[in-house]
Amino acid sequence: MSAVRGKFISLEGGEGAGKSTLLAGLRDCIQQRGIALVQTREPGGTAAGEAVRAIVLDPAQRGLAAETELLLMFASRAQLVREVIEPALRAGQWVLCDRYADASYAYQGGGRGQPMERIAELERWACAGVVPDLTLLLDLPVATGRARAAGRGDADRIEAEADAFFERARAVYRERAVAEPDRFRVIDASQSPAAVLQAATLAVDVLIGESPA
Amino acid sequence: MSAVRGKFISLEGGEGAGKSTLLAGLRDCIQQRGIALVQTREPGGTAAGEAVRAIVLDPAQRGLAAETELLLMFASRAQLVREVIEPALRAGQWVLCDRYADASYAYQGGGRGQPMERIAELERWACAGVVPDLTLLLDLPVATGRARAAGRGDADRIEAEADAFFERARAVYRERAVAEPDRFRVIDASQSPAAVLQAATLAVDVLIGESPA
Repeated sequence: MSAVRGKFISLEGGEGAGKSTLLAGLRDCIQQRGIALVQTREPGGTAAGEAVRAIVLDPAQRGLAAETELLLMFASRAQLVREVIEPALRAGQWVLCDRYADASYAYQGGGRGQPMERIAELERWACAGVVPDLTLLLDLPVATGRARAAGRGDADRIEAEADAFFERARAVYRERAVAEPDRFRVIDASQSPAAVLQAATLAVDVLIGESPA
Repeated sequence: MSAVRGKFISLEGGEGAGKSTLLAGLRDCIQQRGIALVQTREPGGTAAGEAVRAIVLDPAQRGLAAETELLLMFASRAQLVREVIEPALRAGQWVLCDRYADASYAYQGGGRGQPMERIAELERWACAGVVPDLTLLLDLPVATGRARAAGRGDADRIEAEADAFFERARAVYRERAVAEPDRFRVIDASQSPAAVLQAATLAVDVLIGESPA
């Protein structure tokens, strides 16, 4: 009676990289292949996590300490893993998540300078061993992404950071992709949305091929 | 020009132990001695911390994982230390805080079974080395405290726990008091409010005596 465990796909990338567009396309693509899919996001995805998201992205929280931000991100993640991701995977559903633990290495580690060992230690117990089967990294020069995102209206507290913050985050993402080539698929996000979706779909089809029928 | 560093007093104790009554009496007592005092609380005490408090105490958050609760408590604490406690102490003010890190050992450790080493590791970096100069522990049998608190209306998410949860928390508080006798002052909270305040005031006067004029 036990279902084949589902696959966990996380999507990472900076501002203006086209994450939202790709998420929508990828969701359709996966569902067209007859796979039951749960789509979620970080921070957020649960009642507690969405309340945390409201704190973390609130531009009025100017004085939020880097340590506080890191703890809040992992609080949201710990809840998401236990309430949404792990139960779905165990039931045989696939999970598509807008950001996951890599984002803390990039933003709280690279961006804010929180020690990588501290983040790794939090990941060790807060994520209960749940690691994505596939991480799609939409990679784009910071200036290109920010120019694309410029027309979107008010920036949230993290989007309001300086370019150097996002350069450091991008560097960490790329380092992590190099260190874990089996899990990461880096996609050049300067391509057209259709080309980005095609590259992502190819990676997903490989994952489907690896999955027992 | 640099002020003599202020003293940090935390107040710990279970439900119905008389924390609120003692806090009010102690605040008056300290201020009457001409000491500038900042009174605050956990979780809470900052905008981010009060938002965390709303999550953690919300009875609707029934599915909040122990790991999430622990991370949220330390997120609130990390912010309180940096935004309120440390700046006040550095400016020569005294700080009186309703609960601090010992509460995580008692409730998330003893109560919820989160490993003590995990809590110690979080305390190490989230609290930035800020430890109370004096911790007043209002100690009371669980049944006595719950009977006292019974008339107060709706219980919050943590107050709604079973007696065994609070027995474990009390045991951890008492162990910590034994392990750190110089910092802790255990007060028998079954005494009258006046006797409890007198015991607390004595401990505070010792602290004043140790403080350079």
